[in-house]
Amino acid sequence: MSFARLDELGRKLEALEHALAILGADEATHMAVGGGAKRAEALSALAGMHHRQATAPEISDWIAAAETEALNDDQRLAVREFRRQYTNMTCLPTEFVERQTAARLRCEQLWRDLRAKNDWAGFQPALEGIVAIAREEAALRSEALGLDPYDALMEQYDPGNRVADITPVFTDLKAFLRDFVPEALAVQQERLAKSPKRPLSGVYAIERQRELGLAMMGAVGFDLTRGSLSVSHHPFCGGVPSDVRITTRYKTSDFLSALMGVLHETGHALYEQNLPEAWSHWPLGKARGMAVHESQSLFVEKQLGRNPAFWQWALPLVEQHLGERWSMEEILPHVHHVERGLIRVDADEVTYPLHVILRYELEQELISGRLAVADLPEAWDARMRDYLGLSTIDNPADGPMQDVHWPSAAFGYFPSYTLGAMMAAQQWAALSREHPSVDDEIARGHFETVNAWRRDKIWSQASRWSTPDLLERATGERLNAAHFTAHLKKRYGR
Amino acid sequence: MSFARLDELGRKLEALEHALAILGADEATHMAVGGGAKRAEALSALAGMHHRQATAPEISDWIAAAETEALNDDQRLAVREFRRQYTNMTCLPTEFVERQTAARLRCEQLWRDLRAKNDWAGFQPALEGIVAIAREEAALRSEALGLDPYDALMEQYDPGNRVADITPVFTDLKAFLRDFVPEALAVQQERLAKSPKRPLSGVYAIERQRELGLAMMGAVGFDLTRGSLSVSHHPFCGGVPSDVRITTRYKTSDFLSALMGVLHETGHALYEQNLPEAWSHWPLGKARGMAVHESQSLFVEKQLGRNPAFWQWALPLVEQHLGERWSMEEILPHVHHVERGLIRVDADEVTYPLHVILRYELEQELISGRLAVADLPEAWDARMRDYLGLSTIDNPADGPMQDVHWPSAAFGYFPSYTLGAMMAAQQWAALSREHPSVDDEIARGHFETVNAWRRDKIWSQASRWSTPDLLERATGERLNAAHFTAHLKKRYGR
Repeated sequence: MSFARLDELGRKLEALEHALAILGADEATHMAVGGGAKRAEALSALAGMHHRQATAPEISDWIAAAETEALNDDQRLAVREFRRQYTNMTCLPTEFVERQTAARLRCEQLWRDLRAKNDWAGFQPALEGIVAIAREEAALRSEALGLDPYDALMEQYDPGNRVADITPVFTDLKAFLRDFVPEALAVQQERLAKSPKRPLSGVYAIERQRELGLAMMGAVGFDLTRGSLSVSHHPFCGGVPSDVRITTRYKTSDFLSALMGVLHETGHALYEQNLPEAWSHWPLGKARGMAVHESQSLFVEKQLGRNPAFWQWALPLVEQHLGERWSMEEILPHVHHVERGLIRVDADEVTYPLHVILRYELEQELISGRLAVADLPEAWDARMRDYLGLSTIDNPADGPMQDVHWPSAAFGYFPSYTLGAMMAAQQWAALSREHPSVDDEIARGHFETVNAWRRDKIWSQASRWSTPDLLERATGERLNAAHFTAHLKKRYGR
Repeated sequence: MSFARLDELGRKLEALEHALAILGADEATHMAVGGGAKRAEALSALAGMHHRQATAPEISDWIAAAETEALNDDQRLAVREFRRQYTNMTCLPTEFVERQTAARLRCEQLWRDLRAKNDWAGFQPALEGIVAIAREEAALRSEALGLDPYDALMEQYDPGNRVADITPVFTDLKAFLRDFVPEALAVQQERLAKSPKRPLSGVYAIERQRELGLAMMGAVGFDLTRGSLSVSHHPFCGGVPSDVRITTRYKTSDFLSALMGVLHETGHALYEQNLPEAWSHWPLGKARGMAVHESQSLFVEKQLGRNPAFWQWALPLVEQHLGERWSMEEILPHVHHVERGLIRVDADEVTYPLHVILRYELEQELISGRLAVADLPEAWDARMRDYLGLSTIDNPADGPMQDVHWPSAAFGYFPSYTLGAMMAAQQWAALSREHPSVDDEIARGHFETVNAWRRDKIWSQASRWSTPDLLERATGERLNAAHFTAHLKKRYGR
């Protein structure tokens, strides 16, 4: 039976993915610094074995045969996802993948060096090479999938996401934020004029912050017997569903920075920990995509973690672990701080979408060829001034050179961040329609209702549905910016 | 060129060995407890891939062809070790390996359960099964290698070790220890009668013990950029040469137990860290075997770490980290404590060899069939009374059930421990002949001379020579018990 062959293949690939995931997390947390070169060799060889095994020509026959076999519903969906994975992994010729990998590694190295030197002129030729290759990739994927080029790139990250659906939603959101950012800043200023911000004391011992983080992780549903919290330079969620490795980084001057990072990664972790165990060796059993994943992390960080109800419950926990008493009026200005800035990863939830929309627009123009890399600094600056009133023309390091995505040839990924934020708000709206007293539960530290809803609607569904269909089944409607804008108005408006 | 094929195979196997080693160390140190089942699946699948790739039939042709190619000296030795590895991995039929693996897993589980219950009667049939399989294994290896059955088992752990060479040395050692153990105990008693032992204060914070351990590791040569120290239930040295993971376990009541464990594992780590990097993907580049490895760990733990000169340097370090001042007269009775006991792993360096010789004698009789498993408790008890004056007849849990080696079907391994202790003493004797002032250097915390000698004679040699030849090239003579007995007499005698 061909399905049995696919099932067995899935188990072999799962073992290699397990090794790659744990070795990857280990590299950022526990590896000795001198172990890097051999680790890179090992990861590259294991990734090669995975790729060879996952793309073997006979798999195509197994899938075709399995599609005609008598299978139950889960198995039929599993075959569909085996096909999607196989198509996505084989639609690029080996010659192309090798060329792209080499160009990407060179461009990333150059980027690390030249961003620090604010040297756009040195960087531009390398990025031109990457964009040329990305156009080739988009064309190859487009042909294999029968999608428009940019849609074909997004399809890797979020099956079913299309420009035709996303652009109108982003356009509405952009129009809203143009007016709303000034309003939110004015509201903030008025509040601060009435009562000035209480500064953080800045003496937050790392071990105590860690204990507080663990207490909150456990409370919101992280299974501490199937995961752990470590330290790394950049926070991430890695590992495998049975052993999810999340990390944060601590500043003794500020406990909120690490804590919000922990809540964000806990959101990713809850999704991984609650995927259906029996499907863990099938592509069907994996998380649906980057936007849905981001919706889960942002749900915990923004919809729960910056919700005033959450802080009613959390403040005594902060006092218990850090020995510092805060009132709601004192903590919320920290949790809800809004500020126009140049850097996407430092942005708050009000301004963040404008950073993403800017990149979404520019990268479509780069892929289509309407925009040349040489003109990117000016195009970036013009939009940055338009959307956020800031200029980057003398500062490309904090303009088009700020993210690793483009040097890494990851075009089509950026929209996932804001789609995730919007989907999280839409999920919260649906959940609180069904459970009107959910804020009261959160204020008492009860997350069972919230998690039961998410387990049922999102986590247990794994990759059964496309990204838009998953959202619609969970919330009763297609992506609708109104939920996100209502959320922002409620939290940051007049 | 066939050698190039072997070289490439070596790189693939090294990547899988890297994954197996790091995942193995991670399991004991950082893995979430609930991650065990999936980790076991992944390790088993990866080990299967390694075995399949390492034993592919075409490798036999590559080796044969490479043996006729024009190669340099290193490459010729590399081919010899490729052949040794291939022969050792392929001399057991797959049917046998599967049967043995299943029996071993069953027997180990049973052992864990029944040892706790002191239930020999329940355990005996499982061990009978294992011994029957071990006899089969010895016969298969004997035929493939042209060695006597027990020699063929030892050959897996220490190439070149033979009963004909070891038994006379062990016989001398046993005769010496029969008289010397009572003498060492009498000497100890006389000293304690004159000045009673100063008890340990028992308030040794784990973090401080860890810092002391790291300071000593670094001082004796552990490269902290290519390795780390963690905590695990049983201390071990794992990982890969570029990232050696050693562990210990802490008791707040006693700092010497963790510290001596750290020094022991540091000895293993120094060997791994100093193997020739360029050969890391060849069997030739690996450590020679278990006895040589144990000689390196015992060299650091016993020849350095229990040397009074070492403590002249170490006591101020202890004071600095633990805030406790000890004199030489106070610390040495702890470091040189001798006691007759039932448990091998708790034994001191004077009594330990008798535990090993007992097992070496009994396991040869089990393999040859001269001893039946049913008669093992009495045979064990008789030797235990003879060698150490202790009885285990009512206590098989601390008699023939005390070690995991036999339930794991690892016959031929035990002699490595005492061979390692003797080789360490012989290395120390050669080193201090060549460098008569080495004790003065150690007393000042200088380990460069010691490590330069070991790097030159042992570490850099990797698997160039058989175990006996490596020792002879390093020390100028074959294994000679006189160095070990002289060492014991000097440290523990009148």
